[in-house]
Amino acid sequence: MGLIVQKFGGTSVGSVEKIQNAANRAIAEKQKGHQVVVVVSAMGKSTDELVSLAKAISDQPSKREMDMLLATGEQVTISLLSMALQEKGYDAVSYTGWQAGIRTEAIHGNARITDIDTSVLADQLEKGKIVIVAGFQGMTEDCEITTLGRGGSDTTAVALAAALKADKCDIYTDVPGVFTTDPRYVKSARKLEGISYDEMLELANLGAGVLHPRAVEFAKNYQVPLEVRSSTETEAGTLIEEESSMEQNLIVRGIAFEDQITRVTIYGLTSGLTTLSTIFTTLAKRNINVDIIIQTQAEDKTGISFSVKTEDADQTVAVLEEYKDALEFEKIETESKLAKVSIVGSGMVSNPGVAAEMFAVLAQKNILIKMVSTSEIKVSTVVSENDMVKAVESLHDAFELSKHPSAV
Amino acid sequence: MGLIVQKFGGTSVGSVEKIQNAANRAIAEKQKGHQVVVVVSAMGKSTDELVSLAKAISDQPSKREMDMLLATGEQVTISLLSMALQEKGYDAVSYTGWQAGIRTEAIHGNARITDIDTSVLADQLEKGKIVIVAGFQGMTEDCEITTLGRGGSDTTAVALAAALKADKCDIYTDVPGVFTTDPRYVKSARKLEGISYDEMLELANLGAGVLHPRAVEFAKNYQVPLEVRSSTETEAGTLIEEESSMEQNLIVRGIAFEDQITRVTIYGLTSGLTTLSTIFTTLAKRNINVDIIIQTQAEDKTGISFSVKTEDADQTVAVLEEYKDALEFEKIETESKLAKVSIVGSGMVSNPGVAAEMFAVLAQKNILIKMVSTSEIKVSTVVSENDMVKAVESLHDAFELSKHPSAV
Repeated sequence: MGLIVQKFGGTSVGSVEKIQNAANRAIAEKQKGHQVVVVVSAMGKSTDELVSLAKAISDQPSKREMDMLLATGEQVTISLLSMALQEKGYDAVSYTGWQAGIRTEAIHGNARITDIDTSVLADQLEKGKIVIVAGFQGMTEDCEITTLGRGGSDTTAVALAAALKADKCDIYTDVPGVFTTDPRYVKSARKLEGISYDEMLELANLGAGVLHPRAVEFAKNYQVPLEVRSSTETEAGTLIEEESSMEQNLIVRGIAFEDQITRVTIYGLTSGLTTLSTIFTTLAKRNINVDIIIQTQAEDKTGISFSVKTEDADQTVAVLEEYKDALEFEKIETESKLAKVSIVGSGMVSNPGVAAEMFAVLAQKNILIKMVSTSEIKVSTVVSENDMVKAVESLHDAFELSKHPSAV
Repeated sequence: MGLIVQKFGGTSVGSVEKIQNAANRAIAEKQKGHQVVVVVSAMGKSTDELVSLAKAISDQPSKREMDMLLATGEQVTISLLSMALQEKGYDAVSYTGWQAGIRTEAIHGNARITDIDTSVLADQLEKGKIVIVAGFQGMTEDCEITTLGRGGSDTTAVALAAALKADKCDIYTDVPGVFTTDPRYVKSARKLEGISYDEMLELANLGAGVLHPRAVEFAKNYQVPLEVRSSTETEAGTLIEEESSMEQNLIVRGIAFEDQITRVTIYGLTSGLTTLSTIFTTLAKRNINVDIIIQTQAEDKTGISFSVKTEDADQTVAVLEEYKDALEFEKIETESKLAKVSIVGSGMVSNPGVAAEMFAVLAQKNILIKMVSTSEIKVSTVVSENDMVKAVESLHDAFELSKHPSAV
């Protein structure tokens, strides 16, 4: 007998039928003799509807009151799921974040979990009940309701799995698992049987969108085995754990990509010790996320290129112009309609030729690489948006990602 | 400077505009220098929508989970009202029932408030904030969310007013106050300036529908002055307090009425000590509310007549037939299409002729009285449904209720 934490996202509990389907998933694990905790998000678009209500009243509603408002979304789902389980003859009980003992820092809208008092949950599990917990929410020391920000329900599930020492945390979603790349763009994309936390982190950060990076990080820190799987199909999903033993021989595990990238280049910066920190601190303060950064040095002048989301490009330039005197640069140039294509795989650490192979594949397809950035388990390139799909397809092909590893 | 508790029901916060209107009401009291607590219900039909969701999942959803579900309704309203106040430049903070320190018994769906820990609210009021509290809900000692049943938000408002020793509790609603009778039926119905708790209790119980009897009882016990007033008009409403000094000379304060009444008569009951209790305990167990009861005694046989809501009539007869052997009666007869018409006024205590006058008025209009029931401050009669409006109109006229008391 084990303890399983299941998490169902908004699309997987978006209707009465889907809630009943989630109930069946919980029952299936219960029937195997496991203790079951189910973490759920708000139903479908209900969070969006609450946000519109708030926006109709205030352009900038207080974050505390937004948390108060949004926390109702998951509370609706937990009660309905609990009713569905009871209707099917199973003993179930639902808890809000605060009732489930989830304590967070006192930051509204994006709080981090600081502690989980599992006594109530452990007690109910001991009694054989299926325990339903509202994802995405917690409570501060002062009994204020907080929410955990984007990917919050994933984080709740993983944190509860860690605190309860669960054997596994299943993330049910609207895709059957983690793919070598986005199957909507590359037909030969293949569902991975396994992937390591670090690889998943890189893929999650690079926009694979299946699991929130915070949840993956949490799972890695507490060594919680995760499985991303379909809420509608019964087949196995993708297992995420420390080392993916199944596919060790694969150097590249997946390919992530993202369009709508703009490259910003600052020419003729006076080389100063604080130049770089001034630029990027200023941008960070305005909530502009900078991704790849490349610095070139020529005599006493410095050039800086960095990539931002295209939607942030205009504001980026405006902010920099504002600080032109302080930064003492000559000019700024931007290039839009770019895309980022990255290969990810922990096998790269021991295979130094992977980046070179990637560049060769792209060169062979006449794809110009405009920026490069590497980490231990990833190589990112920035290319023209028009070349994005071609780049992903040819890399997917070259690194033989469509082949099942056992067939290698 | 005083402390005012305001309560806005579902129709008074049913849209963004109405929430902004409620915010303006709170601001008006704040600007007069008062401390302000606002208790709100769920927006408009949102509770009904939540109930339908639950019913789609289960015919008999668990009461605990229903409380979990329904409590979200008020939580949405408190956050939106708080945002509206903040948007208008006022410092506001919202609290759920459990955050506001409202403790209840451990009965789901219909809990009674056992205690209120006002420390958080008092602290925020001291800081000058407008405090918003979710009506209709509380928390048990075991941190379970409960709801207070029908009229729950009224009760929350009155209980908070009592606990905070408020100077006044204003109940904002979609009518301008308490009327001598229902103005939809009787054109000359007049809004009362004042009414006593006891009179209001009789009117509330008799279906006047403006204020829930539990809230009135609570207000009476703790001597909280209530005012029922319009959420859209600025004119004064109806003040409810221990003795209504303004209109002391009025013997009859108002006329309540209700259609869809059925009279059930049981003939030839064996007179036994436990006969009555057996009948009415049995009906109570099936949740059938019996109103007026009349007993006739003839030799060793007893006859019983009582009134029920017509919707309960079939079940009433079925239940009685079920117990026919135990009760040993001869037959049951029912008469439907009846109505109850009642006059209410604390002046009756010292005016024994009022009931007689009522019967005379009805007789003069050829209205046959089928049942009579009296209390210290009320006389109820059951008449044919067809005679209901005529009865109300002629009584309203005879007791001169349309005349302003200062003009008497």
